[in-house]
Amino acid sequence: MAAPIAFYFDFISPFGYIGAHLIEPVAEKHGRSLDWRPMLLGVSVMNVMGLKPLPDTPLKGPYISHDAQRFARLVGLELKRPAEQMHPLPPARAFSWLKDRDDELAVRFAKEVMRRYWGEARDMADPKELQHLTQDLGIDGGELMSAIESADVKEKLKQRVDASLSAGVFGTPTFVVDGEMFWGADRVWMVERWLETGGW
Amino acid sequence: MAAPIAFYFDFISPFGYIGAHLIEPVAEKHGRSLDWRPMLLGVSVMNVMGLKPLPDTPLKGPYISHDAQRFARLVGLELKRPAEQMHPLPPARAFSWLKDRDDELAVRFAKEVMRRYWGEARDMADPKELQHLTQDLGIDGGELMSAIESADVKEKLKQRVDASLSAGVFGTPTFVVDGEMFWGADRVWMVERWLETGGW
Repeated sequence: MAAPIAFYFDFISPFGYIGAHLIEPVAEKHGRSLDWRPMLLGVSVMNVMGLKPLPDTPLKGPYISHDAQRFARLVGLELKRPAEQMHPLPPARAFSWLKDRDDELAVRFAKEVMRRYWGEARDMADPKELQHLTQDLGIDGGELMSAIESADVKEKLKQRVDASLSAGVFGTPTFVVDGEMFWGADRVWMVERWLETGGW
Repeated sequence: MAAPIAFYFDFISPFGYIGAHLIEPVAEKHGRSLDWRPMLLGVSVMNVMGLKPLPDTPLKGPYISHDAQRFARLVGLELKRPAEQMHPLPPARAFSWLKDRDDELAVRFAKEVMRRYWGEARDMADPKELQHLTQDLGIDGGELMSAIESADVKEKLKQRVDASLSAGVFGTPTFVVDGEMFWGADRVWMVERWLETGGW
């Protein structure tokens, strides 16, 4: 069995949402599973790279915002998002906690967080929304809500984010195929080429 | 006749070189000419966006350097470049001066600057290299060398760079098709989709 494709995501990125949508059929076609791994743009962009957030960057900010909408439309997604950007930590911690228990369920959770946040403009950091989601997925909501407040779970997500930085991940989506890293939803075609050819 | 595709480039970007290589057949296939327009990454990235140069950015710098090599190999180009980054102004001013005289010749000049800089590691800001190039293209070298030192030519390039910023251009390659902007050598497939569909 070929190694999984690592897929690094942050819920707050529209390109992470688009990337998740695009990589799935490609991985499946090539008999690869996806290993969903959390990263945090706030940490990589601001703390490690020393850059300002993209939306606050002149010229590039407005372009990226237009581009995300255009890219999403092209692949059949709609980007709505609440007016206020979601706090990424509660759903990221919940994902991390779930991943240690049931990877498949964690992925279903992550996809639903993306779909509800980006597709339905629901703030998935809101405890009420998280409760709804756990209910829909058959997860014990009380257990999840107290887990994401625990020091252990916070520390485990921190370790995962540190691991993403050690792996050189700075943006999302990032895909790693057999040790080769690709950044960007607009690079899924290149990931596919790599899978087809084994590299060049 | 359909409007030209605007193509914004800076000689110092490997992706500009790759983008020039990729956009030409796409434009030709769709009966579009290319309008080569200079931009300067030093101005857009540092002065306007307030970011540090990409090579100095942790995580992203090393990735981009690896990616440029990989991307170039994929499209049949080699990236050599001199150890020291070329000063972009002399060839950009020369291009701008030529463009006002003979657009086709200016494009041939730009392509040769890219090929010699990226493909043959020659410093195309060096007066000797510029002299060689003008000779090969049948341009009056003395005239060109004194033109790029003149205040008028410096001012004209500045106007062109200001125009790129007013158009919202922050990186290279940037393509503008019928008012729609696309940034990145990895977006040529999307430019092509836009040309095929007229937008979505």
